[in-house]
Amino acid sequence: MKNKKNISSVPSASVIPVALAGREYDILIGQGLLENAGKLISPLLLSASPAAIVTDENVWRHWGGCLAASLDASGISSAPVIFPAGEASKTLAGLSSLYDGFARMALGRDGLVIALGGGVTGDMAGFAAATWMRGVRYVQIPTTLLAQIDSSVGGKTAVNLPYGKNLIGAFHQPKLVIIDPVTLSTLPEREIRCGMAEAIKYGAIRSSGLFNRLTGKTAGFMEAIGEIIGECCRIKSEITERDELDYGERMLLNFGHTFGHAIEKMTGFGSHTHGEAVAFGMTIASGIGERAGFTRPGTSAEIRRALAAWNLAPDCPLDPAELIPLLSSDKKNEGGMSRIVLLRRIGEAFIYKMPFSEIETLLKAPADPLKNSSEGGWQ
Amino acid sequence: MKNKKNISSVPSASVIPVALAGREYDILIGQGLLENAGKLISPLLLSASPAAIVTDENVWRHWGGCLAASLDASGISSAPVIFPAGEASKTLAGLSSLYDGFARMALGRDGLVIALGGGVTGDMAGFAAATWMRGVRYVQIPTTLLAQIDSSVGGKTAVNLPYGKNLIGAFHQPKLVIIDPVTLSTLPEREIRCGMAEAIKYGAIRSSGLFNRLTGKTAGFMEAIGEIIGECCRIKSEITERDELDYGERMLLNFGHTFGHAIEKMTGFGSHTHGEAVAFGMTIASGIGERAGFTRPGTSAEIRRALAAWNLAPDCPLDPAELIPLLSSDKKNEGGMSRIVLLRRIGEAFIYKMPFSEIETLLKAPADPLKNSSEGGWQ
Repeated sequence: MKNKKNISSVPSASVIPVALAGREYDILIGQGLLENAGKLISPLLLSASPAAIVTDENVWRHWGGCLAASLDASGISSAPVIFPAGEASKTLAGLSSLYDGFARMALGRDGLVIALGGGVTGDMAGFAAATWMRGVRYVQIPTTLLAQIDSSVGGKTAVNLPYGKNLIGAFHQPKLVIIDPVTLSTLPEREIRCGMAEAIKYGAIRSSGLFNRLTGKTAGFMEAIGEIIGECCRIKSEITERDELDYGERMLLNFGHTFGHAIEKMTGFGSHTHGEAVAFGMTIASGIGERAGFTRPGTSAEIRRALAAWNLAPDCPLDPAELIPLLSSDKKNEGGMSRIVLLRRIGEAFIYKMPFSEIETLLKAPADPLKNSSEGGWQ
Repeated sequence: MKNKKNISSVPSASVIPVALAGREYDILIGQGLLENAGKLISPLLLSASPAAIVTDENVWRHWGGCLAASLDASGISSAPVIFPAGEASKTLAGLSSLYDGFARMALGRDGLVIALGGGVTGDMAGFAAATWMRGVRYVQIPTTLLAQIDSSVGGKTAVNLPYGKNLIGAFHQPKLVIIDPVTLSTLPEREIRCGMAEAIKYGAIRSSGLFNRLTGKTAGFMEAIGEIIGECCRIKSEITERDELDYGERMLLNFGHTFGHAIEKMTGFGSHTHGEAVAFGMTIASGIGERAGFTRPGTSAEIRRALAAWNLAPDCPLDPAELIPLLSSDKKNEGGMSRIVLLRRIGEAFIYKMPFSEIETLLKAPADPLKNSSEGGWQ
């Protein structure tokens, strides 16, 4: 599944190629890659103009010096474009401040943008790169587990609007993704858990092996994290290759996200992390699937168990019925219907077009004691 | 060069196909097409959700009813998204107001955006369509001469930043371009002249036949305007087909624009129309070309003569040397050099990478009396 790549004097890395015709790129995963980023990025440069490092103030403090020094050692000049950490920056105003930074450094069409940080950074920097002068090249260096296994791969870039998450965006593939698990060392435990929610999602939709590996074995887990990241990236890149523009199979990656986005929106983008919201969303979607008779009974309980192993409490803080009005601004809508992702069983997912009225009924239905005897309350 | 197309009960139209693999579309040109737009657009719809008509308040007043009625007659529901007329709207804030309109009407990923208006409308609506939910389909219905011969074709979309024109944008090809010369009837004469500046540009870079046709025969000209529009669209579509993403030949279309954009910026986007600024820009670029010995002597005078036929005064309102600092934020920059388009002669253009210092010297040089004996002042 993975090759090993040796670039002279760079630590060995796992390589996952993403085969998109004309927009191919590699995902490199390995301890110590960040301090060798300059050597990896150097072949991508089109000109001697400085590279823009887009990052938030926290990540810049932890890892900015390491990256800038590595670029410098490879003769690549760079300038940081720093924004306040957090999802609240991922707006048109936040985007505008990145453009200001690009203008200050006179970033040209032949310039390079480097996204150093989590999902917010990758989404914003990627969209800024997609639209600056109608598109410049960019490299993803994700530093959170969530970004490493999910948002840095696949070329989706976006910012939020007040009335919806990721409503504005573009498909813009990076030229390279550099994943160094060393950066996880400065990540709060809550962020690790949230990344695990997405890893559990990959298992739930595509790989029961990965799912089982993630259930209930948290001790000593971080030593093998590079392998988990690689497995998730492999699933995502395969799905992306078959459906880059998200008209079919790629929607499977949204398992738990339709409800997750609505929860994030209702709670004001910030009281719950994306991973926590997706965790709630997965319990809701698997519960709906079981009630509708599509999902093997007990699947919802399996998901709750896997999430519980990472202290992801699956009890939704909201009455799920309250989510219905919020679903109507979701991108996956089509004429009064919502496309939601349901499971047949762990490892197998499908897309189902369901009228809002049916979702509402299923959300309000009491749990079926025969199907979910071990679960109380909302599934 | 053009085919005739008959869609049942639609007036006959000239058809210029734009052959971009996977993103093919037709440009239709004909009197009376606007009131038949519904029939032309109907096959493009992916869903029954309403189409967004993006337009400014002036164009909406003149032509909005006609378009909406035509859509309605074909069973297409629509909602207008109206913004204040003028280049001052073409900002991130203006864009944000379009997004608000899309959200109000719950425009989905399967929705359609119709750009009804001039270049500002097409650029903004196209960029909004490119980025709404990471891209929805759109149709261009240009209503100004400038938009009909230039900005509605080729898929370039953009908004301005305070420090530069069209700095933010995307390549997003329309699904159809509908050009109805009837809409020119409500256009101020100044706007017709400005469109002619771009038509003269097409002649200057690619067709001496077109150039000669545009020189000094203004009386009765508007009867044949459909043919002129078609000739310009044909040149633009051919160049776009060969260089969609503007890395080579497409830059020829920027003849006069490097200086034109700087003039627009210096005079605050609005005191001169885009066409007037490009007219100045063409006289500057042809003057530089002659002084540097690249351009056949007398070419600048020919351009001034053609422009004068349309009351486009080629005397730049600024000291051209003042433009230098403004050139540095132009998208066509590369490491202290500017890519400018120069002519060999009328009908033949090329791209030249010139250091700013050389441009400055040529801008400041007095006119060469041997080469430009009939011209006073700045060439």
